[in-house]
Amino acid sequence: MRGKILIAGLALSASLGSTAWANESVIKLSKDPNNWVLQNGDYAGHRYSKLDQITTANVGQLKVAWTFSTGVLRGHEGSPLVVGDVMYLATPFPNVVYALNLADEQKIIWKYIPKQDPSVIPVMCCDTVNRGVQYAEGKIFLYQADTTLVALDAKTGKELWKAVNGDPKNAETGTVAPLVAKDKVIVGISGGEYGVRGSLTAYDINTGKKVWRAYSTGPDSEMLLDPEKTLSLGKPIGKDSSLKTWNGDQWKTGGGTTWGYTAYDPDLNLIYYGTGNPSTWNPVQRAKDGKPIDQKWSMTHFARDVDTGVAKWAYQMTPFDEWDYDGVNEPILADIDVKGEKRKVEVHFDRNGFAYTLDRVTGEPLVAEKYDPAVNWATKIDLDKSSPEYGRPVRVKKYSTFANGTDFNTKGICPAALGSKDEQPASYSELTGLFYVPSNHVCMDYEPFKVSYTAGQPFVGATLSMYPGPDKPERMGTFLAWDAGKGKIVWSKPEQFSVWSGALTTAGGVAFYGTLEGYFKAVDQKDGKELFKFKTPSGIIGNVFTYVQGGKQYVGVLSGIGGWAGIGLAAGLTNPNDGLGAVGGYAGLAEYSNLGGSLTVFALP
Amino acid sequence: MRGKILIAGLALSASLGSTAWANESVIKLSKDPNNWVLQNGDYAGHRYSKLDQITTANVGQLKVAWTFSTGVLRGHEGSPLVVGDVMYLATPFPNVVYALNLADEQKIIWKYIPKQDPSVIPVMCCDTVNRGVQYAEGKIFLYQADTTLVALDAKTGKELWKAVNGDPKNAETGTVAPLVAKDKVIVGISGGEYGVRGSLTAYDINTGKKVWRAYSTGPDSEMLLDPEKTLSLGKPIGKDSSLKTWNGDQWKTGGGTTWGYTAYDPDLNLIYYGTGNPSTWNPVQRAKDGKPIDQKWSMTHFARDVDTGVAKWAYQMTPFDEWDYDGVNEPILADIDVKGEKRKVEVHFDRNGFAYTLDRVTGEPLVAEKYDPAVNWATKIDLDKSSPEYGRPVRVKKYSTFANGTDFNTKGICPAALGSKDEQPASYSELTGLFYVPSNHVCMDYEPFKVSYTAGQPFVGATLSMYPGPDKPERMGTFLAWDAGKGKIVWSKPEQFSVWSGALTTAGGVAFYGTLEGYFKAVDQKDGKELFKFKTPSGIIGNVFTYVQGGKQYVGVLSGIGGWAGIGLAAGLTNPNDGLGAVGGYAGLAEYSNLGGSLTVFALP
Repeated sequence: MRGKILIAGLALSASLGSTAWANESVIKLSKDPNNWVLQNGDYAGHRYSKLDQITTANVGQLKVAWTFSTGVLRGHEGSPLVVGDVMYLATPFPNVVYALNLADEQKIIWKYIPKQDPSVIPVMCCDTVNRGVQYAEGKIFLYQADTTLVALDAKTGKELWKAVNGDPKNAETGTVAPLVAKDKVIVGISGGEYGVRGSLTAYDINTGKKVWRAYSTGPDSEMLLDPEKTLSLGKPIGKDSSLKTWNGDQWKTGGGTTWGYTAYDPDLNLIYYGTGNPSTWNPVQRAKDGKPIDQKWSMTHFARDVDTGVAKWAYQMTPFDEWDYDGVNEPILADIDVKGEKRKVEVHFDRNGFAYTLDRVTGEPLVAEKYDPAVNWATKIDLDKSSPEYGRPVRVKKYSTFANGTDFNTKGICPAALGSKDEQPASYSELTGLFYVPSNHVCMDYEPFKVSYTAGQPFVGATLSMYPGPDKPERMGTFLAWDAGKGKIVWSKPEQFSVWSGALTTAGGVAFYGTLEGYFKAVDQKDGKELFKFKTPSGIIGNVFTYVQGGKQYVGVLSGIGGWAGIGLAAGLTNPNDGLGAVGGYAGLAEYSNLGGSLTVFALP
Repeated sequence: MRGKILIAGLALSASLGSTAWANESVIKLSKDPNNWVLQNGDYAGHRYSKLDQITTANVGQLKVAWTFSTGVLRGHEGSPLVVGDVMYLATPFPNVVYALNLADEQKIIWKYIPKQDPSVIPVMCCDTVNRGVQYAEGKIFLYQADTTLVALDAKTGKELWKAVNGDPKNAETGTVAPLVAKDKVIVGISGGEYGVRGSLTAYDINTGKKVWRAYSTGPDSEMLLDPEKTLSLGKPIGKDSSLKTWNGDQWKTGGGTTWGYTAYDPDLNLIYYGTGNPSTWNPVQRAKDGKPIDQKWSMTHFARDVDTGVAKWAYQMTPFDEWDYDGVNEPILADIDVKGEKRKVEVHFDRNGFAYTLDRVTGEPLVAEKYDPAVNWATKIDLDKSSPEYGRPVRVKKYSTFANGTDFNTKGICPAALGSKDEQPASYSELTGLFYVPSNHVCMDYEPFKVSYTAGQPFVGATLSMYPGPDKPERMGTFLAWDAGKGKIVWSKPEQFSVWSGALTTAGGVAFYGTLEGYFKAVDQKDGKELFKFKTPSGIIGNVFTYVQGGKQYVGVLSGIGGWAGIGLAAGLTNPNDGLGAVGGYAGLAEYSNLGGSLTVFALP
């Protein structure tokens, strides 16, 4: 019952806000660690729980408390939510939502089965995943594969409203978790491998009416950029910042899709998210007059005003991408010491292999260091404010797929296209002040080929070969602790396959994550020492979460192999070269794991 | 390690046989309780293990040791086998077979994926189930849904031979576990709801060549009946015993399918199995000149000579069936006291609600009593040898769907069509001498309708409404202990839904079973007291098994709702009246359970 008492105090302080926005009640719920009310635990994306019944001393005694089959095969990303005694769980396509009664043997209170045209399945690049529902004010928000956003009555599962955000015929699909801020529910869009033009769209939580949409590319008016007020590297962004960096109207089919987790700072009234790769993957086709050009604002982290959608700032991590290093990885908001000064930062572990610590008020990069020593496409990020290359990566020509040209196979690029980390969210431990990062250790050979755009068709333009990073014994993953103020790895624990599961840290000193083989693991936040492991029914790409029911702390995770790393198993591709090479070194997973979606929930005896 | 020592002695005594038949090595393996080498543990079908690490005293401390997703949804019947350090596991359609290395983190050694035409799915009446593979002499025998019998190399998973036993175009399908006896592998056939003519067929284990086939109906030559030597109720069966009891050539589409578990007595050289309902379910259409006629040998238990297939005896439990009380339930062979005399018996818990104790040498009924007090279609089985009705049920006219006629809805018949027990195998405890029976407590309204035969089309001819038996509070199942010598219930434990999971008893005094809600349960053999329960990912219709690995006893069960009781969930039927009423009272399962095949394996901490 310790958690309950802790929370009472916190909930009080949370209610000191002003108007009755939806996020206020969500914040109140999120400050009660008995709940898991947001996909990442709180709006800052900490994935940290104040619960401390399970500790480094007793976590080795964990046992499985209960299990639940989702009834769906293929990749299970995200996690359920827990609000009071009810758990809300969404599956991959067909995106069934369950409400389970935790106080009564996990009985199914209601089940919502959307009607969706299965023709959306083949245009989902990286499996039929869904990164979870969100909750606010008695409503569950589901973002379906076919881009239908649905508000359900959390009590009954009845539809309150529906809004259609995109068109699957043009390969626009929904995989991302919605975010609720104030009176809005905000969603991105997937389809960067099909030339979809990315956007973020806010709907009214009560009516489903569209309030604003901010595209990732194109005219300022459509991007909701204010040439004077929107900042880039601390300065006004200027007019037509996107249009100027594209070859003709390629921005219209230019990607910059928005499928990672989103964070929210209610004090600054800003939401944070990233944009994906510029389409196509063949950089030669995106160059202008034979020269690289940035393709803004693909590969960018944005901060936007909740009310208007207007960007406060934009920071592009990988201008003129040549490797598919989508900039979508989750922003984590924290107030930490950077070079001796307490800063409001946004930390994210980019696909490109650099961990960025940005000033979240201005978007200026404070720290940017490699979190995988194998990263070789760039030597560093230039943080010299006086440099003309300020904020940009310093590239290594050998690994430039543009310099090497179409139909040239550039070997040994690290990281691989799926990045040093993909969508699997890291955790910020309020206990240690460190970040706990599930990551990939994968390199690739990359060969661009010419491709032309057809709506709804793949617009990839490169074949890959992916393989373990340069270490003995060979391995494809790491779980690591990161000091974001210093830009240093504190400890690093190798894993055979990529760690493609969202991490959780707790006040008990434990960090939890899952592996692609299917192991749920607990390690010591201090040193990464493995304290517990358990083989769940399938490989894990879901995110660990925790809650209290009846006074007892539970920790759970969805297993169900799939996603990009598991696409071979999920879609029945058995050859490493299948899917333009997307299967890669993960073909070996077939020895360990198998399709099947289950929730496994652990507790102390 | 206690099990290992116990076994060494037993294995020695098993090797005292004569010629080197396959069953001898299987018997040797089955006497080592570290293995689970046969679907029902041994050839007698005891489902009893001499392992005693897990006891009534410590079973409450069980925890999940490991789990494995099968990658297949829908109903998971049967169980894996364990031979040494390798587990062999078959899934429902598409009947994937896995070999798992128990000594190395359950890694997949090989995976066999049959190529089958999915058009077989709609002609599987009661879900796409498979009741398990069998092992003998380094081979795994898989009987596919499409009736292909495959021998696989147990080491590599490579196909050794294939034989085709039936034609799915005529709705002949495979669900039953093969039986290996001497140099033969023996399989039945499913499809009683489609007018399939039942048969049992033996193939050479080394070549896949057909050795003999014994039909359930028709001429003596095709049924392998010897008019002089085959016995019925202790007397020669006589000429044309089947043909005489059918209206014209209805026997050609007359059912008597053979889809239950099979037992084997190597000393008597006999195999034991049952035959299903006569087709159609409308008895009026099967009458001759308006009068009931037996439809032999549907609804029959047979003992057949392994070498020739010739029947030693036949005993028909439900002549002229009017309720779909298939006689396929598993024979269990034991030597027990019956009325003060030690007898070689075959015990089985018939769908019709009576538990039969038969002399397994002659087929004569020794004891036949109701194992569910709700049974009302017959008052008793006439066991008076001098009676003209000897061996036959004494019917209650009120519940005669024949007497009431076509298009009349007869109400309140107990048991329902799925019987007081279906295929879920019971266990005979060598510790207590009692039988532990997973059972149904379900009644029905039954309305025959006229139907005509078309090959490959449903030939059912009745609609049902099924509901809980007459008890407060309402419930649909029971787990009970039965004294087969006396024909008495020893204790009876109510369950909300039918207990559709095969039971296991052990030398530790524990009886195990699963429930349709998904609970794996352990009870005391003595009194049925519940000692442990755990919620597996899905409803359980699989059979509990046990084995030793690395000196430690494990107990496991497949979960994966489906089969007849779970067909509503498995096939997406949500209304109790769906499937001609086959869904019935099980519609309530949707509150508890969900599709998904997983193996859950338990051990002491």
